[in-house]
Amino acid sequence: MSHLLTTPKGFLVAAIKSGIKASGKLDLGLIVADVKCNAAGVFSTNKIVSPTVTVTKKHISSGYARAIYVNAGNANSCTGKRGYNDALKTAQHVATLCDIKTEDVLICSTGIIGEFMPMNKVLTGVDKAFSQLGSTRKTHKDFMHAILTTDLVKKEASVSLKLSGKQVTISGVCKGSGMIAPNMATMLGFITTDANISTPLLRKALRSGVESTINKVSVDNHSSTNDSVLVLASGLAGNKKIVALSSSDYKKFANGIWQVCDTLAQQLAADGEGATCMIKVIVKGAKSTSDARRAVRAIVDSPLVRCAFNGGDPNWGRIISAVGYSEVTFIESKLSCKICKDVVYKNGKPVPFNARLLAKKMKQKQWEVEVYLGAGKQSDFCYTCDLSKQYVTINADYHT
Amino acid sequence: MSHLLTTPKGFLVAAIKSGIKASGKLDLGLIVADVKCNAAGVFSTNKIVSPTVTVTKKHISSGYARAIYVNAGNANSCTGKRGYNDALKTAQHVATLCDIKTEDVLICSTGIIGEFMPMNKVLTGVDKAFSQLGSTRKTHKDFMHAILTTDLVKKEASVSLKLSGKQVTISGVCKGSGMIAPNMATMLGFITTDANISTPLLRKALRSGVESTINKVSVDNHSSTNDSVLVLASGLAGNKKIVALSSSDYKKFANGIWQVCDTLAQQLAADGEGATCMIKVIVKGAKSTSDARRAVRAIVDSPLVRCAFNGGDPNWGRIISAVGYSEVTFIESKLSCKICKDVVYKNGKPVPFNARLLAKKMKQKQWEVEVYLGAGKQSDFCYTCDLSKQYVTINADYHT
Repeated sequence: MSHLLTTPKGFLVAAIKSGIKASGKLDLGLIVADVKCNAAGVFSTNKIVSPTVTVTKKHISSGYARAIYVNAGNANSCTGKRGYNDALKTAQHVATLCDIKTEDVLICSTGIIGEFMPMNKVLTGVDKAFSQLGSTRKTHKDFMHAILTTDLVKKEASVSLKLSGKQVTISGVCKGSGMIAPNMATMLGFITTDANISTPLLRKALRSGVESTINKVSVDNHSSTNDSVLVLASGLAGNKKIVALSSSDYKKFANGIWQVCDTLAQQLAADGEGATCMIKVIVKGAKSTSDARRAVRAIVDSPLVRCAFNGGDPNWGRIISAVGYSEVTFIESKLSCKICKDVVYKNGKPVPFNARLLAKKMKQKQWEVEVYLGAGKQSDFCYTCDLSKQYVTINADYHT
Repeated sequence: MSHLLTTPKGFLVAAIKSGIKASGKLDLGLIVADVKCNAAGVFSTNKIVSPTVTVTKKHISSGYARAIYVNAGNANSCTGKRGYNDALKTAQHVATLCDIKTEDVLICSTGIIGEFMPMNKVLTGVDKAFSQLGSTRKTHKDFMHAILTTDLVKKEASVSLKLSGKQVTISGVCKGSGMIAPNMATMLGFITTDANISTPLLRKALRSGVESTINKVSVDNHSSTNDSVLVLASGLAGNKKIVALSSSDYKKFANGIWQVCDTLAQQLAADGEGATCMIKVIVKGAKSTSDARRAVRAIVDSPLVRCAFNGGDPNWGRIISAVGYSEVTFIESKLSCKICKDVVYKNGKPVPFNARLLAKKMKQKQWEVEVYLGAGKQSDFCYTCDLSKQYVTINADYHT
């Protein structure tokens, strides 16, 4: 069983039904720390961001934070000046209740774009959530549910490690299902830890952890306006403060963050809207890292390829033609492709394979596609999922 | 009623069932001209092309051609040296029957990637088609059907014009439904005309005609390995030969080619796999033409946006967030969006609109989305279609 967001020392969480979600489900959560935490965040690269992102980026620039507000059901995005004021008012309200500075509150919203926040519900909801802060499995589970939109399952991960003889825990939860592309997915992620670590190193660990995990998830190549991953480090584990990049403690901690992010990333891809399977698409033998990334993206961005994944169809022609139009360097006489580790195309030529057996392997929950470009030594990968009728149903019916 | 491919003077066509398509449907066609024609072509920009494209590009480089071979059901792509030899052998066989040089034969294939051509069926099929060459509406219709793969409807367009007192006809047909992206769609197009025009101007007219029409169609952003548009000009209309770019005759002719291509392009988008409607996505007010193109592409490449189109959902948030991650310059306080000419977002703010009425308009067969970036004067557009469950069904079930 996974650790809770409140397993690391110094954190309380709560989640309640505020009425923002029309469904009446859990939709508003708080994470509040006993002490001022070192804090770091990674945010959407979309040029249009929600005012919640603007506020949070400003607040976290100090390197500290003590509370996180989050709601699902309304993204408070494309809402202009009024949206900004609403975001700020929310942070102020949380700060007053917690008796902390407004700058120490981070806020996140996810859901419908282009609607103003129902501020009455938000403020009343914050009051209610504050009164229910706790550290039980139930509060943790409620929080995970409160941040979901079209997700089918809640997503969590955690690791424990020893740092200078002390037990340190890193716990993470996230949401994200559709509108998911690298840099970043439409996702919110919250990580708590009781590690004692300087803000610069916490930032570094988070950025590099996200880079090779959550930023490698693509469901539909649509990056949103609200994406954020936040980490709070209370320092209450009592380990000797991590201050050196070269220290083994930093390496252990950074690896722990990476592990939490990687587990969350795979859960994101597996719960991609309508997904029936999670596929890791790997490109090897690229001339440059940007070529490797570009080829991977061409493959996972192709609805045609992802429909073949859905049909359990080892249609390597679609994969190879996607590489063909990706504008990367490859040597056609070396170009090769494996599906579920079976060679289906080698050195520019079709290879006979047992299609029935391979189709069966493609019906597993997790499998791989590997393409070899024969042009160099660089590689990259992405976690993606298949494109199903269910994806269309979800996104044609999720009305504004 | 549209003109036939054989309405321009000097052309015969035929199509037969060769057995290449497993369904037993029409799958092999020929266009043969009475005289050597000036010829031009535009081809896939995919780095991996079918050997049929390699052969055709080589043959058409002379500026002349007299016959076109086409089959559907097998793309002869990713088939290496053997595929190239098969393509050449097919051209040679057509040449022998027509008593013309192999270099005057152009060949096109479309269908499954990665399977060798069943050459017995191809050669016997060519014999049979050659024996049935004609100029009736039936042979024209059969030809249109023979080139289809997952298309639901045949596609044709034609214009008549007077050039130096002579009646000139331009007729075109094409196929294409899925794996459709600009530069170029997975499509084959064949245009016949009896205009008397120099090869350089014919090339120019075709390229510029295709550029603003067929190259603006995007169904699933997957460009294939076999795309070709070919035009043969017999010169038999007897008009004074068009040799000057500045002549009014050239302008009329080029406009005719554009019109044929534009009509075909709209038919391609409307028959996109699983499409229920055709949408023209326009971006205005861009700082540069490349920004305009990039913003259009971000919108039409988003499965999320195209699912909203399918659901008749005026979800402008998805459109605007796609612009946000497209990396183009815009001024958020001027950013605006219209759906079916209704303003839904203006100067960076939501605008109240009648969602029920707008959803109804989005159920029309053809409609428009317009985005204004407020950063300059450039614009661009794309023809696309909605993303439906039917698209997934088609592409998950179309097995290799």
